[in-house]
Amino acid sequence: MNSSENKLFGDNLNVINIGLPSFADTLRDQNTPVAHVDWRPAAFGDAELAALLETAKKHNSELREKANKEAAKKILDAQPVIVGIAKRAKDVVPGLKDNMILHAGPPVSWENMCGAMRGGMIGGILFEELAATPEEAEKLAASGKIVFEPCHHHDAVGPMAGILTPSMPVWIIENQTYGCRAFCSLNEGLGKVLRYGAYSEEVLSRLRWMRDVLAPTLNQALELHGEINLRSLIAQALQMGDEGHNRNRAGTSLFIRELAPFLVKCNIDTDELSKIFTFLHNNDHFFLNLTMPAAKSSTMPANNIEGSSLIPVMARNGTEFGIQVSGLGDEWFTGPASVVEGLYLPGFSADDAGLDIGDSVITETSGIGGFAMAAAPAIVQFVGGTPDDALETTRRMYEITLSEHPAYQVPALGFRGTPVGIDLFKIIETGILPAINTGIAHKNPGIGMVGAGLVKPPRECFVKAFKAFVKNYK
Amino acid sequence: MNSSENKLFGDNLNVINIGLPSFADTLRDQNTPVAHVDWRPAAFGDAELAALLETAKKHNSELREKANKEAAKKILDAQPVIVGIAKRAKDVVPGLKDNMILHAGPPVSWENMCGAMRGGMIGGILFEELAATPEEAEKLAASGKIVFEPCHHHDAVGPMAGILTPSMPVWIIENQTYGCRAFCSLNEGLGKVLRYGAYSEEVLSRLRWMRDVLAPTLNQALELHGEINLRSLIAQALQMGDEGHNRNRAGTSLFIRELAPFLVKCNIDTDELSKIFTFLHNNDHFFLNLTMPAAKSSTMPANNIEGSSLIPVMARNGTEFGIQVSGLGDEWFTGPASVVEGLYLPGFSADDAGLDIGDSVITETSGIGGFAMAAAPAIVQFVGGTPDDALETTRRMYEITLSEHPAYQVPALGFRGTPVGIDLFKIIETGILPAINTGIAHKNPGIGMVGAGLVKPPRECFVKAFKAFVKNYK
Repeated sequence: MNSSENKLFGDNLNVINIGLPSFADTLRDQNTPVAHVDWRPAAFGDAELAALLETAKKHNSELREKANKEAAKKILDAQPVIVGIAKRAKDVVPGLKDNMILHAGPPVSWENMCGAMRGGMIGGILFEELAATPEEAEKLAASGKIVFEPCHHHDAVGPMAGILTPSMPVWIIENQTYGCRAFCSLNEGLGKVLRYGAYSEEVLSRLRWMRDVLAPTLNQALELHGEINLRSLIAQALQMGDEGHNRNRAGTSLFIRELAPFLVKCNIDTDELSKIFTFLHNNDHFFLNLTMPAAKSSTMPANNIEGSSLIPVMARNGTEFGIQVSGLGDEWFTGPASVVEGLYLPGFSADDAGLDIGDSVITETSGIGGFAMAAAPAIVQFVGGTPDDALETTRRMYEITLSEHPAYQVPALGFRGTPVGIDLFKIIETGILPAINTGIAHKNPGIGMVGAGLVKPPRECFVKAFKAFVKNYK
Repeated sequence: MNSSENKLFGDNLNVINIGLPSFADTLRDQNTPVAHVDWRPAAFGDAELAALLETAKKHNSELREKANKEAAKKILDAQPVIVGIAKRAKDVVPGLKDNMILHAGPPVSWENMCGAMRGGMIGGILFEELAATPEEAEKLAASGKIVFEPCHHHDAVGPMAGILTPSMPVWIIENQTYGCRAFCSLNEGLGKVLRYGAYSEEVLSRLRWMRDVLAPTLNQALELHGEINLRSLIAQALQMGDEGHNRNRAGTSLFIRELAPFLVKCNIDTDELSKIFTFLHNNDHFFLNLTMPAAKSSTMPANNIEGSSLIPVMARNGTEFGIQVSGLGDEWFTGPASVVEGLYLPGFSADDAGLDIGDSVITETSGIGGFAMAAAPAIVQFVGGTPDDALETTRRMYEITLSEHPAYQVPALGFRGTPVGIDLFKIIETGILPAINTGIAHKNPGIGMVGAGLVKPPRECFVKAFKAFVKNYK
C-alpha cells in the first residue's frame, strides 16, 4: 500500500454509500458508520429522458403540484361502501350489452389474448349459453360476433382474466364522498376457476350456484344489514395482517362475522345456508372482489384532472400492462406484460406460467396491495420473499407516491399511512417502479391457477405516458 | 481539557455500552459505532442472591438441564383441542362442589380479596341463587359457608376475577398429546361484566342467556363440527395480528367462520341464532377464554417434573401474584400484585384501577400473550406503548425462556417461534421479569373494566421460589 492508501485504511472511516445497499451492509457489519443514500440513476439511466424530465419539472410545475394535490386528496377522501349485489351485471354496469364480455387490463383482441383470458372467454360464453361446447365457444369468440372490452371502460374491475359477462351477479360499490359506483364479479375461490382460465363443468356449475344461490342470499342479508363501509373493513384488515390484494384472510373473516347475524335471517334452506358459510370460509380471497371495486371507486374521482401526473389506473390483460394518467384522461399507455417471480403450486413450475394479468393492481393504485405489504408480513409464504422485504417494499413506495392514507395504517411502521397516489413524475425521477403482488395463471386455457408472486410493471408504459404528458402540457 | 481528555474526544470513538440502552442510542444518533450489551445486574443486584445463584448453577445442573428440556418439550408438543362445552361446570371440573366458587390466582380469603373479586363473588352467588340481593350475597360470602378455591386447583383458569360457579357452562379443552383436560368459563365481553367485578341485573341476565342459549347452541354446533384444533387456530391468529391475551380479534373471527356452517344447522330459533352471531361479533375477546384453557392444558404436563426450574403456572388474584415451579410441585410462591401501566376507558383514570388480576397470564406462561406481542403491533392501541416496544418485548422474553414454539410463529421476526418455557434460573440470572399485558378492573366491587395495560410481576415470588428450589435440590 502507498501512504495515501495507508492513511485511508488506517483511519476510522465515515462512509457515504450511494446506490447499491450491499456495500453499505458490508461496512455496517464491520461496525463502520455508513450513511446510505438510496439512489438510482434518474429516468432509468436514459440521458435523453433525464433531460426531458429536467425541462418538464420546471414547466407547469405549479399547475401540476396543485392538480396532484387535488387528485391525491380525492383518493384519500373516498368512502367506498357495499350497496348490494345486482342479480345481472347488464342491469347496472354502464354500457354492458348482451353480446359483450368484459376483461381485465387495457383493450386486447381475441388474437392477442393470452391463454388464461381465452380460457376465461370460453367459460364466459358457455356460462351465457351462447355456445354448447368449448370448441363452439372458441369459434364464436374468433368470429367477431362477441364484443370484448376492458372492465375499466365500464367502471368495473376483474381479477386475473377479469371475465365479466352480462348475466353474472356483481358487487355494487359506491364511493359515498363522490357518488360514483364501481362493479366487480363475486370471487370464486382459488385453483380451477374462471378468472384463471378454467372452464370445466366444475367451474361452470359453481358459477351457476353463485348466481342462483350465493348472490341473492348475500344481497338479501345486505338489505337487512344496510350498507357496509369498506374503508373501515379494509383499515381493520390491514391491522390484521392483510394487504388487500393477495392476503385477504382477515377481510374475508370480518365480512363473514359482519354479515352472519343477517344471513341467518334470509329465506333460505338451512343446508344451502350452511353451504354458503362453508364456501365463504373456504375462500380467503372472497374479500379481494370487494377491495378491488372499493379501490376502483376510490381512484375514479382522481382521473381527468387537468395537469395531474397521478396514475389512477394500472391494469394488465396478460399480454400488455397499461396505465392511465389523470391529466391525460382515458388514454392507455402500454408495455409488454412481465414475468412474475413467484412460488408455484405443487405440480407446476415457471414453465407453466402465463404473464402478469388482472385488474387487481387497482389495489396498489389505491394504496393497498403491494404498497401495504409491510402490514402483511405473512404474505411472503404465498408470494415469496422475506418479512423484511415486505417492510422494505412499502417503504420504497413512499418514494413514488404523493400522500399517505389517513385510514389505511401499518402498525409495524408506527401506524404510518400507506403510500398512496402514484406520481408518474416520481417514477421517472427515481427509476422506482410500482411494487405489485399477484396470482399466476397457467399460460394455456382451461387449466387455472399455478402460483403467486411479485412483479414489476414494464418501464415502457411509464416512459410513453411521460412523453405524452410532456407533449400535452408543453 | 487535559491531554488525555483531548485524545479521547478528538479521536473517533468505538464504544461498548453496557446496561442502559439510552446511552447507546445517543451515540448512534451521532454516528458513533456502538456495540450495546443488554445487561442488568444478576439476581436483581442482590449480592447474597447472586452468590446463591453461582452455587446453585453448578449444583444439579445436569438434572436441571435434562428436566427443563423435558418440561419445555411437553409444552411444545401440546395439541389442545375444543372437545365441547359442559352445561354445568360441576359436572366436569374435578372437585368443584355446590358450595364452592373458584377464583383466579393463588388462594385468597374473603377478607383479603380485592374489590373486583369481591364483586365477582357477589355476582357468582346471585347467579347461583344462593342469595337474593348483593347485601345478602356479601353476608353469605363473609360467613364462611362458601368455599373459595383457585381455579388452578381444579384444572381450570378464569380471566380477571376468574369467577367460576358450579352452574356455569365451561369450555372443555383437551391436550390430545397427553390426554389432560382444562376448563374455562365462556367470555362475556368487555365493560360491565362479572369477571371485572360487576354484578348488576344486566350482568346476571347475560350470564343466564349464555347458560341457557349460547352455550348449548355452541355445543350442539361443536358436536356437528367435531373437535377444533386450537393449536392451529392460535398459530393462524398470530399471523393475523393477535397475541392471544389482549388481542383476540383474529382468533374470534376464525372461530366464528369455522363454526358458522354448523351453527346454522342447530335447533334454534332464527332470532336467537342471529343474537348469538351478534354477541360473538361484538366480543373480540371471545377467543381469550379458549386461548387460556388451551394454554393451561399445554402447561399442565410440564408441572411436577423432578429437577425442573420451568414455571408452568403464573396467576394473580388482585392481591397477590403467584407462581408454581415444575420441580417444586403445586406449591405457590407469591408476592404483592403490581400496579398496571395502562390506557384507561373514557371516564376512568389510574385512581380507579385495581391491581394486577387474573389467570389469563397462563397465556404468557405458554408462550403467547405478552411473549408474542411482536405478532400483534396493533395491540399497543389497547394496552399502550409503541409497535417497536411490542417487538422488543418478545425479543427480551427469549432471554428467560428455554425454547421457541414450533407452531406459534411471529412473521415480523422472520417467522421465529415465540419464546416459551419460562425458566426461574434465567429470571434470577438476567433480572428480566416476564412481560404481561392485561385488562384493568375497577378497584371497587360492582363497576367493571376501566382499562388495559402492561404489567411486570413482583420480584418477590421469583426470589422466594428460587430460594425454595435451591433448598429442595441442595
